Amino acid sequence: MVTSPSARGEYTKSVERRREIIAAAVEVFSVAGFHKGSLRDVAKRAGLTQAGVLHHFPSKNHLVKAVLTWRDEQAREAIGDAARVGGLTYIRAMVGLVDANQRETPELAELYAVLSAEATSHSHPAHDYFAERYAWVLDAVQTAFEDVAEAGHLRPGVDPPDAARWMLAMVDGLQIQWLYSRKSVDMTVELRRFLQTLLTVDL
Amino acid sequence: MVTSPSARGEYTKSVERRREIIAAAVEVFSVAGFHKGSLRDVAKRAGLTQAGVLHHFPSKNHLVKAVLTWRDEQAREAIGDAARVGGLTYIRAMVGLVDANQRETPELAELYAVLSAEATSHSHPAHDYFAERYAWVLDAVQTAFEDVAEAGHLRPGVDPPDAARWMLAMVDGLQIQWLYSRKSVDMTVELRRFLQTLLTVDL
Repeated sequence: MVTSPSARGEYTKSVERRREIIAAAVEVFSVAGFHKGSLRDVAKRAGLTQAGVLHHFPSKNHLVKAVLTWRDEQAREAIGDAARVGGLTYIRAMVGLVDANQRETPELAELYAVLSAEATSHSHPAHDYFAERYAWVLDAVQTAFEDVAEAGHLRPGVDPPDAARWMLAMVDGLQIQWLYSRKSVDMTVELRRFLQTLLTVDL
Repeated sequence: MVTSPSARGEYTKSVERRREIIAAAVEVFSVAGFHKGSLRDVAKRAGLTQAGVLHHFPSKNHLVKAVLTWRDEQAREAIGDAARVGGLTYIRAMVGLVDANQRETPELAELYAVLSAEATSHSHPAHDYFAERYAWVLDAVQTAFEDVAEAGHLRPGVDPPDAARWMLAMVDGLQIQWLYSRKSVDMTVELRRFLQTLLTVDL
């Protein structure tokens, strides 16, 4: 398909506008939660009318899914090749991601904590997203720990399925402690120290 | 103060009514979250008018605080003497509490997961409650692990402050995994297995 320069310009503008709305949504939802945060608040923060937001995202559910998808894309980019390499490389990349979340996008971490808890309810629009995501990430981390065990780097007596569950639980749980007390909790330091207890080599 | 039999009857009825409203609130808030759950829904579920609920709890904030206080009282009763004894006895009692939450009051566990995540936002009415509660519980668990270390029952290299943070993070994090997949996750089993890795004696 041949696209005229002006159509391409329109497309680029639309992509940028969507990004701006997503950034505004992250800020609004992370403070108010998904249920209380309104499209009107998102529009106001993005400097648009509500109709302007609805042009790009027909409903709040569409918007929150776009936020989650965008975050996943960011994470996938950050993990990069480590996902293919697996083993300790993957575990280390996950720790790096937690570190980046904590230092660079705390408001996104807050949104994620709220949404993942709210969405445990079956009627929440993001329920299936999170249920599938937990299953998928758990599987990936378990595979990584199986590689680690095979290399002889997992502490005797630790099973890869447990290690995977524990690592994910630790990320979620430390995140909540950090959100309540950002000055006294360093998620990355605590997570690394915990993971080190599962390993026979340096993380 | 001398209270007439009829006044005492009124008092008992009022206490019972408050309990019924709290039970209804737990059900409503655990499904809808605190922000979306309304006093009208709570009234409906309790078989009362909204004015009837407002007579006992002047606002939604009063009601949610009553729910949290009630849950703390239940927990304190369940822990009982173990809090005074400390050490492994206290850690075991905490595990017993997690087990009871999972098996007997899953809807309350769900409410708690949602509220503790929502309330990370400073503007949430339960923010101070949770911030104080995390600090307090962390302190109590750390003291217990210090007793355990002193008895020579903590694995070498594990520090009590870390062990306390990890245990709380594990409870919160496993709870989320369990809420997404109740059939495949047993919080208590996973928590016990994790705690065992920190100890040199049987939990």
